[in-house]
Amino acid sequence: MIPLASDTETKPTEAMRRAMATAPVGDEQKGEDPTVNRLLERVCDLLGKEAALFLPGGTMCNLVALKTHTQPGDAVLADHMAHIIRAESGGSPFASGVLIEPIGSERGIFSPRALEEAYGKVRTAPWPYAPTPRLVCVEQTHNFGGGTVWTLEELRSVHDKSRELGLALHMDGARLLNAVVATGTAARQFAACVDSVWIDFTKGLGAPVGAVLAGSKDFIARARLYKHMFGGAMRQAGIVAAGCLHALDHHVERLAEDHENARRLARGLSRISGIRVLTPEPETNMVFFEIPGLPMDVPTFTAEARRRGVSLVGIGSGIRAVTHLDVSREDIDRAVAIMEEMASGK
Amino acid sequence: MIPLASDTETKPTEAMRRAMATAPVGDEQKGEDPTVNRLLERVCDLLGKEAALFLPGGTMCNLVALKTHTQPGDAVLADHMAHIIRAESGGSPFASGVLIEPIGSERGIFSPRALEEAYGKVRTAPWPYAPTPRLVCVEQTHNFGGGTVWTLEELRSVHDKSRELGLALHMDGARLLNAVVATGTAARQFAACVDSVWIDFTKGLGAPVGAVLAGSKDFIARARLYKHMFGGAMRQAGIVAAGCLHALDHHVERLAEDHENARRLARGLSRISGIRVLTPEPETNMVFFEIPGLPMDVPTFTAEARRRGVSLVGIGSGIRAVTHLDVSREDIDRAVAIMEEMASGK
Amino acid sequence: MIPLASDTETKPTEAMRRAMATAPVGDEQKGEDPTVNRLLERVCDLLGKEAALFLPGGTMCNLVALKTHTQPGDAVLADHMAHIIRAESGGSPFASGVLIEPIGSERGIFSPRALEEAYGKVRTAPWPYAPTPRLVCVEQTHNFGGGTVWTLEELRSVHDKSRELGLALHMDGARLLNAVVATGTAARQFAACVDSVWIDFTKGLGAPVGAVLAGSKDFIARARLYKHMFGGAMRQAGIVAAGCLHALDHHVERLAEDHENARRLARGLSRISGIRVLTPEPETNMVFFEIPGLPMDVPTFTAEARRRGVSLVGIGSGIRAVTHLDVSREDIDRAVAIMEEMASGK
Amino acid sequence: MIPLASDTETKPTEAMRRAMATAPVGDEQKGEDPTVNRLLERVCDLLGKEAALFLPGGTMCNLVALKTHTQPGDAVLADHMAHIIRAESGGSPFASGVLIEPIGSERGIFSPRALEEAYGKVRTAPWPYAPTPRLVCVEQTHNFGGGTVWTLEELRSVHDKSRELGLALHMDGARLLNAVVATGTAARQFAACVDSVWIDFTKGLGAPVGAVLAGSKDFIARARLYKHMFGGAMRQAGIVAAGCLHALDHHVERLAEDHENARRLARGLSRISGIRVLTPEPETNMVFFEIPGLPMDVPTFTAEARRRGVSLVGIGSGIRAVTHLDVSREDIDRAVAIMEEMASGK
Repeated sequence: MIPLASDTETKPTEAMRRAMATAPVGDEQKGEDPTVNRLLERVCDLLGKEAALFLPGGTMCNLVALKTHTQPGDAVLADHMAHIIRAESGGSPFASGVLIEPIGSERGIFSPRALEEAYGKVRTAPWPYAPTPRLVCVEQTHNFGGGTVWTLEELRSVHDKSRELGLALHMDGARLLNAVVATGTAARQFAACVDSVWIDFTKGLGAPVGAVLAGSKDFIARARLYKHMFGGAMRQAGIVAAGCLHALDHHVERLAEDHENARRLARGLSRISGIRVLTPEPETNMVFFEIPGLPMDVPTFTAEARRRGVSLVGIGSGIRAVTHLDVSREDIDRAVAIMEEMASGK
Repeated sequence: MIPLASDTETKPTEAMRRAMATAPVGDEQKGEDPTVNRLLERVCDLLGKEAALFLPGGTMCNLVALKTHTQPGDAVLADHMAHIIRAESGGSPFASGVLIEPIGSERGIFSPRALEEAYGKVRTAPWPYAPTPRLVCVEQTHNFGGGTVWTLEELRSVHDKSRELGLALHMDGARLLNAVVATGTAARQFAACVDSVWIDFTKGLGAPVGAVLAGSKDFIARARLYKHMFGGAMRQAGIVAAGCLHALDHHVERLAEDHENARRLARGLSRISGIRVLTPEPETNMVFFEIPGLPMDVPTFTAEARRRGVSLVGIGSGIRAVTHLDVSREDIDRAVAIMEEMASGK
Repeated sequence: MIPLASDTETKPTEAMRRAMATAPVGDEQKGEDPTVNRLLERVCDLLGKEAALFLPGGTMCNLVALKTHTQPGDAVLADHMAHIIRAESGGSPFASGVLIEPIGSERGIFSPRALEEAYGKVRTAPWPYAPTPRLVCVEQTHNFGGGTVWTLEELRSVHDKSRELGLALHMDGARLLNAVVATGTAARQFAACVDSVWIDFTKGLGAPVGAVLAGSKDFIARARLYKHMFGGAMRQAGIVAAGCLHALDHHVERLAEDHENARRLARGLSRISGIRVLTPEPETNMVFFEIPGLPMDVPTFTAEARRRGVSLVGIGSGIRAVTHLDVSREDIDRAVAIMEEMASGK
Repeated sequence: MIPLASDTETKPTEAMRRAMATAPVGDEQKGEDPTVNRLLERVCDLLGKEAALFLPGGTMCNLVALKTHTQPGDAVLADHMAHIIRAESGGSPFASGVLIEPIGSERGIFSPRALEEAYGKVRTAPWPYAPTPRLVCVEQTHNFGGGTVWTLEELRSVHDKSRELGLALHMDGARLLNAVVATGTAARQFAACVDSVWIDFTKGLGAPVGAVLAGSKDFIARARLYKHMFGGAMRQAGIVAAGCLHALDHHVERLAEDHENARRLARGLSRISGIRVLTPEPETNMVFFEIPGLPMDVPTFTAEARRRGVSLVGIGSGIRAVTHLDVSREDIDRAVAIMEEMASGK
């Protein structure tokens, strides 16, 4: 199976497994796991933040961050296709009790003007009738936008507008390091624009479990309580944190290969009649396409592809293919060939 | 002061005050207030519903209804300018823990297709990543849409689409009786399209306090618990319920005058240079307008109007004027004259 | 029917009805109702607090106060039979998301030592495993304790201990004025011991609808948001606020009669064989008794009493009788006679 | 350091590390991790339940289980020193919005009569004023009770009473396998008494991360949504699940050694002047003691013990020592000797 459905499907390498098997460990929730502590320091340094928190996954990072930033009655402004709205089981509206106001965007990247428009809609009525705008969320890279990248300039302009409007700024950085590799901008430059940010080690970085949320000391101290309340405190988590550290050491630079493979895939697919590629020039590791010219619907297409050895995922009316460290250049060519056969009715 | 800011500002008439002063009362929260009970029966009959609940106001009707219909993790679909999103202090996202997905609309009235599009956005990711679409809300008449009316045909088409999608349908009927008077459609015909509906007595009907939520027996039995939990249970509420009953007897038909006054106001304003009327043909009792050609902003305009004896309210970038039983035809003419003077710089 | 079940059953007098019928009114939720504003000033003065909020009932006062004082993850310490735990539909645990830790007490009045013990139980584990103790609640008078009174000395000692432990102090003052009349201590002296306090006008004071929560300016400003979120904002509430003002003017001193009647009732009941009076010397307007020597259970007794013209209420394993302005001395004698007949098997 | 503070401090053995390093893995949250799936089957078989859910820790098991069993406005009945009340950061009251009613107990084990009394307190007032009793929680073994065991007979009697009262029954089985080894009763016999149950692999079983919640198919299907909402879904969790499987294969029988060591420790401590052992005959792996005769307080004692090489934890006014697979018989003797020296003032 060529696993193009998601970069969450990456499996730990042998070297990563060895790192995990030999990691020194302690009680993480008491702050006594040396490997987790090393990871937190490492991420603080990478992102230029004062403090950090280890969590079992990215969804909990968003959950904890939103709860820490907001109060019930607040509004959170996020791109209308943000992962936090579309793919986190409605956890944040539940736990934070906030209104999530969608921002119009171009494939997940929104302008200061679009932000201001969403802000204006929240403020239609006078307070206290209107919810209180409190927080803006950006997603780097933007998943359902097609792995799109916030450039530093775009991010800064949204940061400036957020400050002007009195709003905090949070980054869902599930794939922040893809953006770093794609742009050459340092992670801490991106992170300097936001009040809180997290990175996920289970996407293209290939670790099995773990994400780290970072921010100011005060922010993380308060976030730690919610980590405990939501059941995210772990014990000898150094085992999995060692995989995250290994990923930082060995799997960041190679994301460039994934990006090259995504471009190769987009080119390949764009030559297939009946397929329309929505991301003809993938910015990172994702390719979205539709099949308007094929005599089948999306579920049929993905099921048939899976039968032939290519896993893909339907997202809304499109299909997503994601490249990562378990997908080689040869896999790409083979996947294109398989889909070409399918399109030609063979 | 000509009170055009809102029909919530109506004051009880002498006759209504007498009705309240002589009402028989009991302990409402135990079901023992005879006047409240009469009101509930009356509303059940009016709306063709099995059961009803007396509440201190319309916001609590929406709060209780949404909590009764949903579970955390659900999504509620509502027009993007619905009162429940824009002007209820974020209470429903907090109490119900749901995602509110906005539906695109034409001045608050949306098509089955727009509903389906919003539904599709909620379902971008597969369950359980995606919130579960559960409930659709309509607002009759639509406040921020300009007092716009859902025709029975429009409502039925949305009802049919909701059923097809497996969604319940709730009506915020704050001004349902304005729609009834404007269209000649019976309230129970509108109500037959929805699972739950409430009417407010403190808008154009002119009662001081009270709203009634109606639905099936089972729905109201469950809603009653949330009424108690949210602190909405009252004692000798028959005093205010008597005002609501009086309003049903005496203030419904006369809403037609308010509608005529709104049209008169719209015509008057449309002749003033510098003012653009957004609702040139008001469907009920609201007029929205902008002042693109005047050398002042909205807060300055409304403050100056108030100084001259006309109360108005800024809603987003526009200005709203609402007619009701404390606004006469002469008041309208005087208000137009005052704004004309303001526009001409006198 | 002699209405001894609850002082919530009091009905407005003719004079109170006249006061309500002639009250000037405005839009309460915008702060424009002159009668509500007069009531708020009056209560601020009575309680020596900076600011106050009008709400539809006492349950919402507790709901809003607890939400304003706490954050999820906090613990609230309250007597184990407090109304907030036992008789408010679980609203506060839901809305505030707090643990409610019961304090052991003597008929609702607890000692600083008992408070400290409950505090110690909350702090069994180290933070952040243990919830954070944040607020203490007292109930004046204590309903299920039998209308028991916190003396100023008792309240001050609990205040001092609360300060020592870093806890805020809230008073559910549903029947605070009964305590004032029973002890001669001024309301503001009691209120000076607590950070927030509310009084209810629908108990012995005899008004139909309304309660007022008071505290610091900052506290009330934040509480106001929750009033809106929970749907407690009203419109021309001056109608019912006028009843509350009338009650303050005319129905406070007379609570002494209710207390005398309660003592008369307790004495009468204590002479009936088979009845054990739990409050032989009622401190205010409540009598609790059991019927260990009668050949029937509580529901049968209360049903039979109702059939014979006396309404009572079963609370746990006991029976409660409450005196108020709709119960005369003659009613008491008649009620005793009726229960004597029942006990003697006639 | 002799790590007696908690059995959560156990570190993975070399053999367990090898098992983790070689485990086949997949995407856990999609149900595609083969090692997690093996673990779930294994636990279902062990506990005789239809379905199970892998979670990052025990606190999330309680969080998810309570949310699945209850609705806001419900009451959950649990021992007054239950872990869920005392040591889970107030997460369950927050997430479930329920009242937690404490049950009186003898070191964590309560009688059907005590359960009924707590139930009666919840039902003091009539519905809907009273919260609705919905769920009973038992803790096997009971942590703050001193590692006490629910015998099958005790558990059955509470099960029967729960059924009679219409309540569901949940077991916090953090150390259920200690009870199994201590009593010889099969895990599935205990589990047959309850509707939901979880076991933790990071206590005496010695795995680094992971707990499994089990129940009916329907219960687990609904619980799965809350797992996602609370951020507990993981990716290649087979790495840590392999540690859990290894623990089930190799670390269950040996819990008997821990129990023997606890008894040895209790005997040793009981001979030290100034120390009072609260659990003279430990039922499983915990020893609680106080130091009434020593000239120091608990924090000083535990700090000094730590300085001398023994880690302990203060729980309320007592001190807890827990035996586990990283504590040998020799460690026990050495720990006793160290504390003897401390007590003798050396």
